[in-house]
Amino acid sequence: MDQQAIQSIVKEVVSRLTASSVNPHMIPIAVSARHCHLSKSDLEALFGEGYDLTKKADLSQPGQFAANETITIVGPRGSLEKVRILGPARNMTQVEVSQTDSIKLGVKAPLRESGDIKDSAPITLVGPKGSLYKKEGLIIAQAHIHMTPEDADHFNVENGEYVKVQVNGDRPVTLGKVLIRVSPRYKLEMHVDTDEANAGFITGKTMGKLMKGEGNAHD
Amino acid sequence: MDQQAIQSIVKEVVSRLTASSVNPHMIPIAVSARHCHLSKSDLEALFGEGYDLTKKADLSQPGQFAANETITIVGPRGSLEKVRILGPARNMTQVEVSQTDSIKLGVKAPLRESGDIKDSAPITLVGPKGSLYKKEGLIIAQAHIHMTPEDADHFNVENGEYVKVQVNGDRPVTLGKVLIRVSPRYKLEMHVDTDEANAGFITGKTMGKLMKGEGNAHD
Repeated sequence: MDQQAIQSIVKEVVSRLTASSVNPHMIPIAVSARHCHLSKSDLEALFGEGYDLTKKADLSQPGQFAANETITIVGPRGSLEKVRILGPARNMTQVEVSQTDSIKLGVKAPLRESGDIKDSAPITLVGPKGSLYKKEGLIIAQAHIHMTPEDADHFNVENGEYVKVQVNGDRPVTLGKVLIRVSPRYKLEMHVDTDEANAGFITGKTMGKLMKGEGNAHD
Repeated sequence: MDQQAIQSIVKEVVSRLTASSVNPHMIPIAVSARHCHLSKSDLEALFGEGYDLTKKADLSQPGQFAANETITIVGPRGSLEKVRILGPARNMTQVEVSQTDSIKLGVKAPLRESGDIKDSAPITLVGPKGSLYKKEGLIIAQAHIHMTPEDADHFNVENGEYVKVQVNGDRPVTLGKVLIRVSPRYKLEMHVDTDEANAGFITGKTMGKLMKGEGNAHD
């Protein structure tokens, strides 16, 4: 066995021990700032015919990336500039904001799982080559945890289950109704929005402890 | 005994039953938007010599009021307009913002108990008649519960203790390190900032359940 193979095995063993044995219930947390996903046709309406997004940085979930392109989103009471577009293009246009943003825009955005935009809030999108009024598409994303089927076994949870996650620190917080999303394509990571992050002083390096129960009083 | 005395007794009995027996651990929650308290001299520097605040509305804590007057606060990265002044004037000028605001201003405001502004963050205040650079005074207010000594007995807590408060709903959240503040002058009420409110969909009508323990994992 060559040196490189040994290094590779050592790295894998250490990684697995760190993830499951040393911190058996701990999950890395990522903070999602406001962002949008655009359909191909909406992208073209805002940036011009045949336009393709350009990659600024890869995201932690495989295949997903932050684009260099941004748009302005506008509600009846206010607007938010430089809202990052995430790629690649999706089937439906979806804008994810915090409750703080929602108040600033003057729109009552519902708390939803990503992809569930039926009867969500309306929003105006403004790009360099045009603007669009979407009758629905604005949501506050429900906190969720991406994980593989192996992670789900390890944590004893299943796809669609709600759990709570405790975060320690100067401003300890336990977030409830955190949705479990399982796919072999996913990488273990909890996603919270900026309100949840700021309420718990959660930064890019924070870990949370997964606990069974959705977090309401009857647990 | 006259009718008025009977009514008064009935009202008091109902009030106490509602507060302690029906909801033995429940506390009303108020959301504090960003605001500032000004010293008399800072008020005059911003609004002119001899200026007195005018009352817009009484606040729930006895003697405290929201003034009609607002100021703009400015940091190295951004500013916030129409920041409400709360009266009456205090010994020291203190500006209370959320972590979201702190990021927008580009200042790292510390989490502090109200009144504890030593070595807190710097902030520029702009009023209609002048502006001021304060070397300290900008804080993120620690979530706290105002209560009377009788309330403290009822909840089995003491002044200065940290507790956690659970809030049920669509976005359940448990806030930790919530400071107990006891005074005969206080009215039972928990104060959270807009980040904590928005992370838990807390509005002016939300109740929270007080629980012993500061909310970190070792509880």
